[in-house]
Amino acid sequence: MPKPPSYPSKVFLNGEILNAADAKISVFDRGFIFGDGIYEVMARIGGQFFYREAHLSRLRTCLDKIDISCNVDTLESEIPRLLELSGLETADCLLYIQVTRGVAPRQHSYPRDIQPTVMMYAWAKTLPDINETPASVVVQKDYRWSRCDIKMTSLLGNVMANEFAMAHDCYETLFERDGILTEASHSNVFFVKNRIVYTHPANCYILDGITRQVVLELCEKLGIEVRLEGLPVQDIPNMDEAFLTGTSTQILAIRKIDDHVISGGRVGPITRKLQEAFLDLKNTGA
Amino acid sequence: MPKPPSYPSKVFLNGEILNAADAKISVFDRGFIFGDGIYEVMARIGGQFFYREAHLSRLRTCLDKIDISCNVDTLESEIPRLLELSGLETADCLLYIQVTRGVAPRQHSYPRDIQPTVMMYAWAKTLPDINETPASVVVQKDYRWSRCDIKMTSLLGNVMANEFAMAHDCYETLFERDGILTEASHSNVFFVKNRIVYTHPANCYILDGITRQVVLELCEKLGIEVRLEGLPVQDIPNMDEAFLTGTSTQILAIRKIDDHVISGGRVGPITRKLQEAFLDLKNTGA
Repeated sequence: MPKPPSYPSKVFLNGEILNAADAKISVFDRGFIFGDGIYEVMARIGGQFFYREAHLSRLRTCLDKIDISCNVDTLESEIPRLLELSGLETADCLLYIQVTRGVAPRQHSYPRDIQPTVMMYAWAKTLPDINETPASVVVQKDYRWSRCDIKMTSLLGNVMANEFAMAHDCYETLFERDGILTEASHSNVFFVKNRIVYTHPANCYILDGITRQVVLELCEKLGIEVRLEGLPVQDIPNMDEAFLTGTSTQILAIRKIDDHVISGGRVGPITRKLQEAFLDLKNTGA
Repeated sequence: MPKPPSYPSKVFLNGEILNAADAKISVFDRGFIFGDGIYEVMARIGGQFFYREAHLSRLRTCLDKIDISCNVDTLESEIPRLLELSGLETADCLLYIQVTRGVAPRQHSYPRDIQPTVMMYAWAKTLPDINETPASVVVQKDYRWSRCDIKMTSLLGNVMANEFAMAHDCYETLFERDGILTEASHSNVFFVKNRIVYTHPANCYILDGITRQVVLELCEKLGIEVRLEGLPVQDIPNMDEAFLTGTSTQILAIRKIDDHVISGGRVGPITRKLQEAFLDLKNTGA
């Protein structure tokens, strides 16, 4: 189980850098009333944000998808000051970014001429070279919406699914939609069978994770065959390996899915190879 | 088109009654980070909240569904003070209630031992005796989750759909799931054919609106046959009448669905009968 999280020291909020306890927004912020916002998480490793441009580009794309107008370049330029005042100039850390549509009297449709709310904070976190925590996961019906390609803050469905995993002493919940495994509550999922890697195509049923994209690139580089296909849930017992990917999850072997032990409960050879190639990437600074 | 809304004068927030501009919550409120909350809207008409117990009971049920522990009786006991300080002791008004899981460092699963955030505000609003605004609506694929029975604040899907309606100069968007019309972005929908009233059954694909329930009771009282069936989208052109229901929408005739004019663009006889019976209920104080 992950350690319980704690608050960061500082929060960037609409241009100001505040103590976390003082970082407050109006109850009329549409992030609070409607979950009307987009978020992003990046890891800084050895002095630079890993796949920074990919994360910021996804932030831009998701903001565009829901018509929130926000200058991501300006936001980016504020990050060094936040890190400095957070005492994280040189530390490995995670950065959370959230942009909501802004503050307005409650009405469902988009209000005109309001300023988006921009919130960011960072906290010290050294990701392990390789994530060795064995992950057990459970499978649950995917009751979320069909625009999972939008990294939004209307996350109650993901929250409920993650709670379901915790209640089963598991790290994650894999979602099954119409019999096909899509992704997990805050990570993507991959399977390996006969040295072929399978993962769900990046359509409206999954969030196209940056680490997912990196793994696909690594497969190509390593000459590992990939099929962008969602796995039918009944094929789980036949899989040789399975793993999760995510910004803080990195590449994490799955040892058990419901009652099915995967790869003898150990990290399989393809998963290990990808973990090592991922570590190389981190060390060389992608 | 509805008038643009304005801010209320006062906000009840965790026991305090504040000027609206001073009502602020932590950026770590799970309502802001995850849309992890439940809401309710009630109308006070002639000195009492219309179907008050049904609304509060639904609030309790929805909080239970997502395991937020909040004493709704205590919350209810604070309403008179809020109304008084808002200068609404005697006014007809709408009351908005939102309860989130509370403030905690960001993690998807439910934190233990935190206090829920309770926010309420009221604003003067006299609902018309009968809502005579003719409503045009558009149809859109229902991309929302399949737990629409939970009146949650993770509302981005509803927000996007309502924006879609506004962009088409319409009052509402009707959702179509697998070819069946379910509900609208913030109201329920009914159809009439050959004097039979049709509406989607109250399952996980719709929010079981209080006004929807009242209309079903009125149908029974008036001897109008009801079938709890979702309408196939291709049957729209054959409908004699259609109407929307909701707390502030009340019973609102639909004059047009996409390009199909309904009931010659006028309020049909069954819709009118139900509107009049609903007005009687309001006048006698339900």
